[in-house]
Amino acid sequence: MTARIRIIGTGLIGTSLGIALSNAGYDVALDDPSPTARWLARDLKAGRIDVEETPDVVVVAAPPDVCGDAIVHALKRWPEAVVTDVASVKEIILREVLASGVDATRYVGSHPMAGRERSGAAAARADLFDGRAWVIVPHEATDPRAVRAVRDIATAVGAAVRTMPAAEHDAAVAAVSHLPQLAASMVAACLRELPEPAVGLAGQGLRDVTRVAASDPRLWTQILYGNAPAVLHVLREVQDQVGEVVDALEGIVAGESEGSLGTLSRVLEAGNLGHARIPGKHGAAPAAYDVVSVVIPDEPGALARLLADVGQAGINLEDLQLEHGIGQAVGVADLSVVPASVEPLLEALEERGWRVHQ
Amino acid sequence: MTARIRIIGTGLIGTSLGIALSNAGYDVALDDPSPTARWLARDLKAGRIDVEETPDVVVVAAPPDVCGDAIVHALKRWPEAVVTDVASVKEIILREVLASGVDATRYVGSHPMAGRERSGAAAARADLFDGRAWVIVPHEATDPRAVRAVRDIATAVGAAVRTMPAAEHDAAVAAVSHLPQLAASMVAACLRELPEPAVGLAGQGLRDVTRVAASDPRLWTQILYGNAPAVLHVLREVQDQVGEVVDALEGIVAGESEGSLGTLSRVLEAGNLGHARIPGKHGAAPAAYDVVSVVIPDEPGALARLLADVGQAGINLEDLQLEHGIGQAVGVADLSVVPASVEPLLEALEERGWRVHQ
Repeated sequence: MTARIRIIGTGLIGTSLGIALSNAGYDVALDDPSPTARWLARDLKAGRIDVEETPDVVVVAAPPDVCGDAIVHALKRWPEAVVTDVASVKEIILREVLASGVDATRYVGSHPMAGRERSGAAAARADLFDGRAWVIVPHEATDPRAVRAVRDIATAVGAAVRTMPAAEHDAAVAAVSHLPQLAASMVAACLRELPEPAVGLAGQGLRDVTRVAASDPRLWTQILYGNAPAVLHVLREVQDQVGEVVDALEGIVAGESEGSLGTLSRVLEAGNLGHARIPGKHGAAPAAYDVVSVVIPDEPGALARLLADVGQAGINLEDLQLEHGIGQAVGVADLSVVPASVEPLLEALEERGWRVHQ
Repeated sequence: MTARIRIIGTGLIGTSLGIALSNAGYDVALDDPSPTARWLARDLKAGRIDVEETPDVVVVAAPPDVCGDAIVHALKRWPEAVVTDVASVKEIILREVLASGVDATRYVGSHPMAGRERSGAAAARADLFDGRAWVIVPHEATDPRAVRAVRDIATAVGAAVRTMPAAEHDAAVAAVSHLPQLAASMVAACLRELPEPAVGLAGQGLRDVTRVAASDPRLWTQILYGNAPAVLHVLREVQDQVGEVVDALEGIVAGESEGSLGTLSRVLEAGNLGHARIPGKHGAAPAAYDVVSVVIPDEPGALARLLADVGQAGINLEDLQLEHGIGQAVGVADLSVVPASVEPLLEALEERGWRVHQ
C-alpha cells in the first residue's frame, strides 16, 4: 500500500520531507549530488541512501535552476514513477519539462509553502509542513494518478492541499510572497547609510516590515529569476504607485500641492483595503479580532504568568504580539481575541493584578 | 515644584499624556476645540477642563496641520510658559513658528514615538509612552529651560529621551517610520484585485510586511505631507531600486539576462545589510539571538503552559513569534533567546514533553 518515495536533493525541504514521510511510515530513498549532504540527511533519519529500487513517486527538491533537468531525468529513468518537484516557481519549470519532449503525463508540479530563514539539511524539521499550504499544480496532460499521489504525500506530512494552474500559482506567490520580500529588502537597504541615532528610533513597525529582509539572497535571486514575468507584473504596479507618490511629494515640496494630498490618501486607503483581505489564522476568513494590551515586566516567567492567567480564564488567544520599548525593561503584550472574549479577558486579568488596556 | 501642564488637543496622544502626567502627580489642564472631546478626556481622568490658570508648560497635541498655529497662539497667550508639541514631523512646524515672528526661545519641539492603529481619546492608555523613545528637538534659539521642562515630562511618563535637530529627526523618521508605512500600504494595495485562492496563500511574511497598512489614512496623509522633503529623499532611493529590479526582470523576460541576476542579488544583499543594523529589544545593540521552535496545539492554555515551562527553567525570552499554519489547528512558536540559553532551553522543554526544533 505505502508508496516508495525517492527524494532528490537533501536540503532543507528535501530532508524535512524525508523525516516527515519516514515518520509517517513511508519507505524513503534519498539522493543528492553531494555525498556529505546525503550522509547528513541519512543521519537525520530522513531515509536510506544508495538505494537502487524503483520508486513509485520521485520528489525533486533541487534548487530552482536545476529542477527542470532533474525532473526530466527522473521521468526518463523511472518510466512508471510519478514525478513532482517542490520549487517556489512553477511555470518556468513546467515549460522546461514540456520542452524536453519527455512524456510528462506522470509529472505534476507542487509547492509546499514552507521555509525558514535558514537553509540546508541541518535546519530540517519533521513538522516543517504541519499546517502549511501545499499547492499542487497540474498541467493539461497531468494524469489524475499523479495528482493523487502528491496529495497523499502532502496530507501525510500535515499540509493543507490547494490546487491551481501554474500561471495562477506564480501570479499568487508573486503578490503574497515575492513582492513582500522585495519591498522588505528595499526598505531595509535604505537603513544602510542611516546615522546611528536615526537607526536607534526603529520601532516595531520597521521590524515587522523588514523581518524577511534577512533571507538568503542566493535562494531569492533564483526565485525572482524563475518568476520574473509575474514579479515584473506586480512590481510595475508598485512602480506606478511609487511614481505617483514621488510626484505628489515633489508637488508639495514645490508648493504646488493641488491634488497631492488626494494621491497620498488614495495610496494609504488602497493599503487599508488590500490589508483587509488577508485571511486570519489557519486560513479562516479575515476576522476582526480585538486587541487587549497588557503591560509585562521584562523578567523570566512574566509572559508565561500572563498567558497562564489567560489560559486559566479559558480564553483562546488568536494572536500575540510583543511590543518592545526602547531603553526600558518593560514590554507590552498585545493579545488578539475574538470580540466576545474581550470583557471576560479584561475582567480575569485585572482580577489577577495585570495592567490591562483595550 | 510640580509644573502646571496644559495639554491642547485631547486625541490619543494628548489624553494618554494627560492620564500619565496626572498619575505622576502633575496638575493637568485640558483644552480642545471640541467640547465632547474635552469632556471625554476629563472623564478618563486625563485632567481638569475649563481651567484659567497660567500654565508652566503647554503641550500642543493637535493634528500636524494646525499644530504650528496652536504653538504660536500659546506662546503669545502665556508669555512665560514653555511650549512644546508632539507631532511626528518637526521641521515644517518649526518653520511655521519661526516665520510667525513670535519669540520662540520658549518653544522646543518634541516627538514621543508612541501611537496605535486606533486614534481618539477612547483609545488612550496611561502607559502609551512607557519604554518608548521621546525625541526632543531644540532649535538654535531654544532656551535650555524649555528642553529641561520637556525632558522632565517625558521622563515622568516613562519614555527614553533622545535629542536631535529637526532636520535629523525628520530624515530619521522618514526612513524608519514613514517609508515602511508607504511600502506596507503599497504591497497591501496590490492584494486588492487578487483572486481569492491567491490571497489564501498569504503567510506570515506577508502579514508582517503589511501589518501597518491598516493605519489611519487621514493621519498618515498629514504626516507624509508634513515630512514631504525627507520622505521624498528616501522614497527616491526606493524608486531607483524598483527601477533597477524592473529593468533586470524585463531583461530576464526578454531572454537578455546578462547582469540581471547580479542586480537582483545586490538588492537582496543590501537588504541583509540594512536589516542587520536594526537594534534589538529595548534599544540594545543588534543581538544575534538564536531561535528555538516549539510545536503548540491550538487550545486554550497551550502557549501559557509552554511559557510557564520556559519561565520555570529560568530562561528569559528575548522575542516570541507565533507562526500560524493554514487550515490546521496547530501552531509553531519561535522563541528567541541568547545563544547561551539554547541548550538549557532545549533540554528543559524536551524533558517536559514539547516537540522542539532548533
